[in-house]
Amino acid sequence: MRPRHDVGALVAKARDGEARSVARLITLVENGDPALPEVAAALAPYAGRAQVVGLTGAPGVGKSTTTNELVRALRATGTRVGVLAVDPSSPFTGGAILGDRIRMQDHTTDPGVYIRSMSSRGQLGGLSAATPQAVRVLEGAGCEVILVETVGVGQAEVEIASLADTTLVLLAPGMGDAIQAVKAGVLEVADVFVINKADRPGADATYRDIQGMLGLGERAPGDWRPLVVRATAVQGEGIDDIVAAIGKHRAWMEAGGALQASRERRASVEIEAIALGTLRARIGDLREGTALSTLAAAVATGRLDPYAAADELIKGL
Amino acid sequence: MRPRHDVGALVAKARDGEARSVARLITLVENGDPALPEVAAALAPYAGRAQVVGLTGAPGVGKSTTTNELVRALRATGTRVGVLAVDPSSPFTGGAILGDRIRMQDHTTDPGVYIRSMSSRGQLGGLSAATPQAVRVLEGAGCEVILVETVGVGQAEVEIASLADTTLVLLAPGMGDAIQAVKAGVLEVADVFVINKADRPGADATYRDIQGMLGLGERAPGDWRPLVVRATAVQGEGIDDIVAAIGKHRAWMEAGGALQASRERRASVEIEAIALGTLRARIGDLREGTALSTLAAAVATGRLDPYAAADELIKGL
Repeated sequence: MRPRHDVGALVAKARDGEARSVARLITLVENGDPALPEVAAALAPYAGRAQVVGLTGAPGVGKSTTTNELVRALRATGTRVGVLAVDPSSPFTGGAILGDRIRMQDHTTDPGVYIRSMSSRGQLGGLSAATPQAVRVLEGAGCEVILVETVGVGQAEVEIASLADTTLVLLAPGMGDAIQAVKAGVLEVADVFVINKADRPGADATYRDIQGMLGLGERAPGDWRPLVVRATAVQGEGIDDIVAAIGKHRAWMEAGGALQASRERRASVEIEAIALGTLRARIGDLREGTALSTLAAAVATGRLDPYAAADELIKGL
Repeated sequence: MRPRHDVGALVAKARDGEARSVARLITLVENGDPALPEVAAALAPYAGRAQVVGLTGAPGVGKSTTTNELVRALRATGTRVGVLAVDPSSPFTGGAILGDRIRMQDHTTDPGVYIRSMSSRGQLGGLSAATPQAVRVLEGAGCEVILVETVGVGQAEVEIASLADTTLVLLAPGMGDAIQAVKAGVLEVADVFVINKADRPGADATYRDIQGMLGLGERAPGDWRPLVVRATAVQGEGIDDIVAAIGKHRAWMEAGGALQASRERRASVEIEAIALGTLRARIGDLREGTALSTLAAAVATGRLDPYAAADELIKGL
């Protein structure tokens, strides 16, 4: 028999900055370990201390280079940083992520940085299931900024925005991104646009496109107007401007109450996802017993309709 | 205000074979209409009368031509037939389906055939959500065989097998399908393999591949050994063999109790899906009230952990 995790001790060590304990806690989260509620309870007091920064964009736009440079710049100011690289599309932790990992090893000897690749494999709800709990672990470990990097495909941007306090959307010139951004509804979720590879032809056009689209959006007085920053991450250019934009958004959120609203919204999404997961598991457990099979037999023979059967099932939960 | 649907009258007319009422009932199903439980209750007595035949395969393998010819052959014997063409991948009812529709119009003047394209758009759980209810409508309308056609991508084959009494998997020579079939776990769900376009080079090799793989599988005495049928649907060749294979599988199921088992399994999946949908809706409703926001505020400030909050939420359902 495997020994039960000593969650209290693990969390205490993570609080003390022991990287191995942080890693083990995130592994519990990834695996949906039965100890998760206990982990969450131990971490609850440290909630809401970090600024969660989502970083998303199309493949090839330079997300991991930008993340790497942001870590460097934040560390230069003494900020404790966590990085979660989430790959929502691949059933494996794919090639790109492995590449990132190697590059991220720039920071592996720095005790002020935690970096973790997470696969959302097998997780119903993808990002929404495990990532918030991993963020809680990093908050517990004292990270002040947590970068959550994910490939912007499908609904990933929208999911990441529901998780993040500040959402960065990376674009690159000449990729038709500006138009795609509007299509995917990214315009509504981005707090900061980063036009990366700004030394390439077309960067000015992309900048104008984005500014133009931002001009069209309706905004009430006091609303946040997304910032647009140019960078060439691979040369470290513009990184300080991104850090400044993140700081501006944080200051705006704190001043106007948006930070608290963002955290309550995030907690709400998290609670709903956990509740639904619990109910799904309870329904799955019913497969073992006779209640579901009795109902199924009644439905199969037409004595009961499936909606009435589902109501019965719910009553028995 | 829109008048409430007179479900009783609609079902009675559908029972009498009125195509318009059948169509309206399936539309209610597709839209997840609030009247659905009432529809299901009215249809329950007619459950389990039809043989549900799933028909799946890779794009281009000739599914709709085969479906069309099967309808023709079944009608020639006086069998009442329903067809559900489900497109699980497209957010729209895509081009291929529209193409099918036109071809299917061969049968539109025949009162013994109902044909319906369904999009699984927006349905959490895809096929598993609306299709079983549409099958119930067609059963209620007196269909004896219901063909459910879907593109074999991702998990579609497995989903269709959980819905169908008899699962047909279509292959074509030279598409590497035989190998792909094994990869996708199709071998376990197919009751009948149809090698379509059997006049093409490579058909014999595909036939041998499939037979070889079937020989490797372990099978208890009395288990069904999948049949392998060759056809050239576009010329109407082999269609009678497919009809015969479907009949053989039905006879085997009735003789050994597999038909009842298949129906109870299907009902079980259906009940679970409806129960989960109901619970999801109830949780969603909580967004309107104060319970969820109170819990979210407590989690956001670290007074409560999200698992404890989820437990509270569930208690309040």
